[in-house]
Amino acid sequence: MPTPTSLVTGGAGFIGANVARCLLAGGHRVVVLDDLSGGSPYNVPDGAVFRRGSVCDPAVVDALFAEFGFDYVFHFAAYAAEGLSHFIKRFNYTNNVLGSVTLINAAVNAGTVRCFVFTSSIAVYGSNQVPMSEELVPAPEDPYGIAKLAVEQELRVTHDMFGLPYVIFRPHNVYGEYQNIGDRYRNVIGIFMNQALRGEPFTVFGDGEQVRAFTHISDVAPVVARSVTTPAAYNETFNIGGDSVYSLNALARATAAAMDVPLRVTHLPARNEVRHAYADHTKVRKCFGLDEGEVPLEAGLAAMAAWVRGQGPREPSVFDAIEVRRNLPPSWRAVLRD
Amino acid sequence: MPTPTSLVTGGAGFIGANVARCLLAGGHRVVVLDDLSGGSPYNVPDGAVFRRGSVCDPAVVDALFAEFGFDYVFHFAAYAAEGLSHFIKRFNYTNNVLGSVTLINAAVNAGTVRCFVFTSSIAVYGSNQVPMSEELVPAPEDPYGIAKLAVEQELRVTHDMFGLPYVIFRPHNVYGEYQNIGDRYRNVIGIFMNQALRGEPFTVFGDGEQVRAFTHISDVAPVVARSVTTPAAYNETFNIGGDSVYSLNALARATAAAMDVPLRVTHLPARNEVRHAYADHTKVRKCFGLDEGEVPLEAGLAAMAAWVRGQGPREPSVFDAIEVRRNLPPSWRAVLRD
Ligand SMILES: NC(=O)c1ccc[n+]([C@@H]2O[C@H](COP(=O)([O-])OP(=O)(O)OC[C@H]3O[C@@H](n4cnc5c(N)ncnc54)[C@H](O)[C@@H]3O)[C@@H](O)[C@H]2O)c1
Ligand SMILES: NC(=O)c1ccc[n+]([C@@H]2O[C@H](COP(=O)([O-])OP(=O)(O)OC[C@H]3O[C@@H](n4cnc5c(N)ncnc54)[C@H](O)[C@@H]3O)[C@@H](O)[C@H]2O)c1
Repeated sequence: MPTPTSLVTGGAGFIGANVARCLLAGGHRVVVLDDLSGGSPYNVPDGAVFRRGSVCDPAVVDALFAEFGFDYVFHFAAYAAEGLSHFIKRFNYTNNVLGSVTLINAAVNAGTVRCFVFTSSIAVYGSNQVPMSEELVPAPEDPYGIAKLAVEQELRVTHDMFGLPYVIFRPHNVYGEYQNIGDRYRNVIGIFMNQALRGEPFTVFGDGEQVRAFTHISDVAPVVARSVTTPAAYNETFNIGGDSVYSLNALARATAAAMDVPLRVTHLPARNEVRHAYADHTKVRKCFGLDEGEVPLEAGLAAMAAWVRGQGPREPSVFDAIEVRRNLPPSWRAVLRD
Repeated sequence: MPTPTSLVTGGAGFIGANVARCLLAGGHRVVVLDDLSGGSPYNVPDGAVFRRGSVCDPAVVDALFAEFGFDYVFHFAAYAAEGLSHFIKRFNYTNNVLGSVTLINAAVNAGTVRCFVFTSSIAVYGSNQVPMSEELVPAPEDPYGIAKLAVEQELRVTHDMFGLPYVIFRPHNVYGEYQNIGDRYRNVIGIFMNQALRGEPFTVFGDGEQVRAFTHISDVAPVVARSVTTPAAYNETFNIGGDSVYSLNALARATAAAMDVPLRVTHLPARNEVRHAYADHTKVRKCFGLDEGEVPLEAGLAAMAAWVRGQGPREPSVFDAIEVRRNLPPSWRAVLRD
């Protein structure tokens, strides 16, 4: 087939910047659409066309589809602040549901799109049994997870009604190069590394014994990129990520070592979050023939730490458009400007 | 307790106008918020305060909460065009999800609201086993059902996070006085009655053997109104509606009889819709102690027909802001202005 043209929304962000690189390496023409609300233009790879704009704006999106006649859509643009989403419900649904639906409409109307790839999240599972497998009944516990689940359902319904093929990934706790380390509401490894650079103690909500599986981006991005040429993946939903689980306390130790700083942890009051979240990856391994092991945490942290040191520290951003202040964790409330 | 103050969104519409009457009869002070996109100001009962505005507008909503300090919220405002929702996804999620979330935020911020009542729909079930019971795993098949499910989940999450109590009803195929008979995309009984008044044949999608249970509003509105004073109903979800099922062909016969016109039916090409939809009502009956039988179809149709004749025929409205035209049923496409 001639050079395929792929739209990468959120391509100035972490996962998008990495997938865009894989696509370019695989011979795709890549167009990045990103509003830079969370990403950086420096993340967009050379060789990609970059357009600044929001996926929520139908005029921008429709014009882009008309200009490029996309073969594939990789939709990563979102604000993925799970814990904060309780306090910014309108923003969450606008960005994550309406933005996605604007792209889905455009893909249906264009008629050129052969596959629509979407990154959902294991937030759709809620406090389900662990390890979470794709067969579980979703039970999201925050607006972010509800929004992701709605978009998953949208893609199924759109496939039934209009025949648009899709692939859904549910990643979890991915970390690595090009990640935003300046967002105080998400990306715990990025937060720790930024705190290390700034000489601050690491902040952990609650006792730190909540458990997560962390995944280096190089175990995720190439799989997502080649999903569009993996027919068996079409119209399927996959967990993707690491199998080894760590408590946040263990993660703090490993990150301090990678950043070569002494371990200092401040425990903040616990917030309302899922205690144990890790997932089963049998399905993705089988479909994509993944048999090499995952990048070990130490190696992944070392790679990210090298990149982070090259970037330098960031002033943590404040999300100012809080809609509900009630029950906002005190550490987040403290930084609000009134 | 002193006179409770209740907000009724969509109170110029069908279910809202009926519930508002029940609330006034029960001694509530009632404030109706409606943008009149589907309702009529003539439906708002005397004795209610009426404000024209959209639930999607946070400024309007927040000002209303500040002015009245609501005890209860009855949220009916929505555009309930299930079949059309595939073609107006953005509109659907804006009105139905963002509008609901704007109210939920306001209710949390106000701190006065003792219960938030929401009308979801059996559209959340999709093509599930019938009769649909509340324990089934939802599997919505259209954007309208996806939006309703997201709002149900929002209410649960909001209860967990902020303690706001809720009651969710999933009604189906309710008909009766104050229903909009001028909307060509929904309310099949209203469409038939309007066609009867205009001397037109009834239009039925497909063979007419799809099966539904129709419910007269007097079996629904009083139960919804007293849910806020039924503690056992708090934080529960209920199917509500009739048990007797009819094919659309049988419904057409009964409606022709009620309107006293000869039966004439035009069959349109089938559209993508759930074939058999009716629900189990054990739970609502038990919780609310409903033991009288339901209003028989003939009696309900007679009551509605008398009201409809008093109103006269309506010119069927056209929804002009179609976002996707592909696969739009030909009868809907034909009326679009280009
Ligand atoms: N990183 C993870 O561990 C993880 C886990 C599960 C799911 N996801 C999902 O993967 C996707 C990418 O996440 P990420 O970690 O790369 O986050 P990120 O914040 O680094 O990237 C998201 C990008 O989207 C952009 N963006 C946000 N809203 C936009 C809008 N309305 N229009 C255009 N661009 C917009 C941001 O500027 C940013 O560059 C998201 O959908 C996220 O929900 C990520
Ligand atoms: N009638 C049914 O059989 C049925 C079945 C299941 C669920 N429901 C749900 O019950 C509720 C009421 O339905 P109905 O049959 O009375 O419909 P309706 O159209 O008669 O009433 C809805 C009212 O909401 C108003 N409205 C719409 N969008 C609004 C907005 N953004 N801001 C303010 N007002 C707005 C309309 O003008 C209308 O008056 C809806 O939520 C609907 O989804 C109805």
